[in-house]
Amino acid sequence: MADLIIRGGRILTMNGTGIDEGVIVVDSGLITFIGKNTDERADKVIDAKGCAVMPGLINAHTHLPMTLFRGFADDLSYGDWIKKIQAAEIKLTPADVRSGAYLGILEMIRSGTTAFADMYVHMDEVASVVKETGMRAALGYGMIEGINEDSDSKLKSRVDFARKWSGAEDGRITTMYAPHSAASCSKEFLVKVRELAAGNNSRIHIHVLETEDELHLMKKRYGMCYVNFLNSIDLLGPDILAAHCIWLSDDDIDILSTKKVNVVHCPTSNMALGVGISPVPRMLEKGINVALGTDGAASSGSLDMWNEMRMALYLHKLKDPRSMTASTVLGMATVSGARALNINAGVLKPGCFADIILVELKKPQFTSPNIIPALIRGCGCGVKTTIVNGKVLMEDYRVEVLDEDKVIEDTRHQTL
Amino acid sequence: MADLIIRGGRILTMNGTGIDEGVIVVDSGLITFIGKNTDERADKVIDAKGCAVMPGLINAHTHLPMTLFRGFADDLSYGDWIKKIQAAEIKLTPADVRSGAYLGILEMIRSGTTAFADMYVHMDEVASVVKETGMRAALGYGMIEGINEDSDSKLKSRVDFARKWSGAEDGRITTMYAPHSAASCSKEFLVKVRELAAGNNSRIHIHVLETEDELHLMKKRYGMCYVNFLNSIDLLGPDILAAHCIWLSDDDIDILSTKKVNVVHCPTSNMALGVGISPVPRMLEKGINVALGTDGAASSGSLDMWNEMRMALYLHKLKDPRSMTASTVLGMATVSGARALNINAGVLKPGCFADIILVELKKPQFTSPNIIPALIRGCGCGVKTTIVNGKVLMEDYRVEVLDEDKVIEDTRHQTL
Repeated sequence: MADLIIRGGRILTMNGTGIDEGVIVVDSGLITFIGKNTDERADKVIDAKGCAVMPGLINAHTHLPMTLFRGFADDLSYGDWIKKIQAAEIKLTPADVRSGAYLGILEMIRSGTTAFADMYVHMDEVASVVKETGMRAALGYGMIEGINEDSDSKLKSRVDFARKWSGAEDGRITTMYAPHSAASCSKEFLVKVRELAAGNNSRIHIHVLETEDELHLMKKRYGMCYVNFLNSIDLLGPDILAAHCIWLSDDDIDILSTKKVNVVHCPTSNMALGVGISPVPRMLEKGINVALGTDGAASSGSLDMWNEMRMALYLHKLKDPRSMTASTVLGMATVSGARALNINAGVLKPGCFADIILVELKKPQFTSPNIIPALIRGCGCGVKTTIVNGKVLMEDYRVEVLDEDKVIEDTRHQTL
Repeated sequence: MADLIIRGGRILTMNGTGIDEGVIVVDSGLITFIGKNTDERADKVIDAKGCAVMPGLINAHTHLPMTLFRGFADDLSYGDWIKKIQAAEIKLTPADVRSGAYLGILEMIRSGTTAFADMYVHMDEVASVVKETGMRAALGYGMIEGINEDSDSKLKSRVDFARKWSGAEDGRITTMYAPHSAASCSKEFLVKVRELAAGNNSRIHIHVLETEDELHLMKKRYGMCYVNFLNSIDLLGPDILAAHCIWLSDDDIDILSTKKVNVVHCPTSNMALGVGISPVPRMLEKGINVALGTDGAASSGSLDMWNEMRMALYLHKLKDPRSMTASTVLGMATVSGARALNINAGVLKPGCFADIILVELKKPQFTSPNIIPALIRGCGCGVKTTIVNGKVLMEDYRVEVLDEDKVIEDTRHQTL
């Protein structure tokens, strides 16, 4: 007797060919079977007729509680935006962060995101909400030197956070070290973070070249460009999540490729702040693993990964319509995201986490001879059912793990 | 006794300040009252509690039946795309066009579009579906010289179309003359169209400078740029809908402004085909009326005007975050669209057409201290109720005027 069977849907495995009217069996949080037929029985059966059944989406770079700042600091230059946001962030209490985390996870569940990589403050609150709601996350307690604590205390508290949460909830929660950027952390600090991460087998989540100013700053500070600097202190490796990566030279791209760094592309946020276009097609050509992230809702306005896929698709087509396809962006939001977060997900196959979503296809916007291009034209509202680790978080548009009205009503805008 | 009262919603009038928990009274297709309270009674009352009540969106440039080509010719250069599409278009039968029109209008009703300007072939079918479904439209029978008929027969049949449909259904259907572009129609032909339009008090809907190639072509053909050529034959005026307008010089913008031409911006389509970025912020500075359109779903993939607003917002922020705001794009999709189509809509005030939508606000993606920026981050799936000319086309997410399942099932992809 398995835990769950999903029957009758159009399975997009993201791992070779799909299966029409297929069956997925889930047991103990894992997919145990995918195929046309099974004699297996289960405690719960979900009828997926008329739905695409696909891997949950993976948001590889966000700052979850910034849902509190949605629409709060729009239409400003990057410099004015960051000033307004930082002034508001300093006032955030743990209760505020908790409220923003609830709102963000609600939005994620509704739009079919099943895992995310986060970096923010008061991360115990975020971790606790992840624990409670059944979401999967890789959590990094953000580190900017010179704010609040001295650097050694900061590092110590981040080690404590990692000890407390790494592998929690049967591995549903993992942790990363999250130095904000090479601009806001010293060389010595980054070297220590690198040692800690290697020692704890933890990944490092860091912003890289979101703005052109950082490029100039690093040249002035270290006499070399940003990527060369990170490489010079041996920070780069397959355990790095490098968010944004906009201002890259061809040499930088070669280095990121050689070092197998995971890049997280955040097109909406980059457009919203006018900071530039990441050279994603060139990175993909060089074999770099490029995942997709919404960044915080203070810039992107949304944690809906369908919006993000759509934006990634069109932003790069702007330069050349052949340079980006719907299949590629869907791969970025699933397969590449899982690789970036180091989780056994992003595809549907036996042995993987049962992180699965059902998308209702009988909608005008999905009516097309080609399913994947049509899907990327929709938004997260087509997601009917969201399953993480074999547990149903939303079924038939009803969120099971949160009181949706209460989360929305309790959102603590008053702190703004 | 009025026909309809909408009560309890948060009214965004797009005409000065909004009204919280306001009341709208509708009679004989028109708004007769907006305010806080009324003693009026009505045959039907809609409870809009928890909803934004706002003008329906206006899609000022589309080719409705191209919903049949959604996802059909993706990831091609502009030249290859147009070849593939034209080869498929030639095979379209009236029944195919009818099927695509049903699908397109279904998508529009669901996403809160209440009026559109269309240009395509077999337009009697489109007009008939508009008539049947209660949608509002300004329909142009597309004209490319050298295809199917000789130019005089073509013009005559377009005059017949205008006579048959102009003002039909109590004015819900209007017509425009729709020469495809100055590249695909001769000077003599355009002069005749101009005379006909002036004589019939009809608008002209035309593509202008969608590609850089057209700029070169016109310089070669007429020794002047595209806008100067149109101006030289007195085609430009406040009765023109000029779609795309990408490759404009500062002088062109001055001419469009002086002549009070209506421009229709189609950002998603332009990005999808890699044809360039229309200088919308500069046009707005010059006081040009810039409306918003999805173009056909063969390029944009979607007729959802929320997707289009979102894309317009971020495309221009890419260059400067201060150059485009959520309020501006919402104005483009409502007030400016109505002005372009010459319809008494796009705002909610007494005397205007009762083209009204209700958007459910209690959703995580709309939770924000500022309502308009948050709305523009969502998609059409938040639209709960769509009203055109006082008639409810969709109520509480249930489309009343079409058999949704049948429309989707009957979509004639087989012709592809």
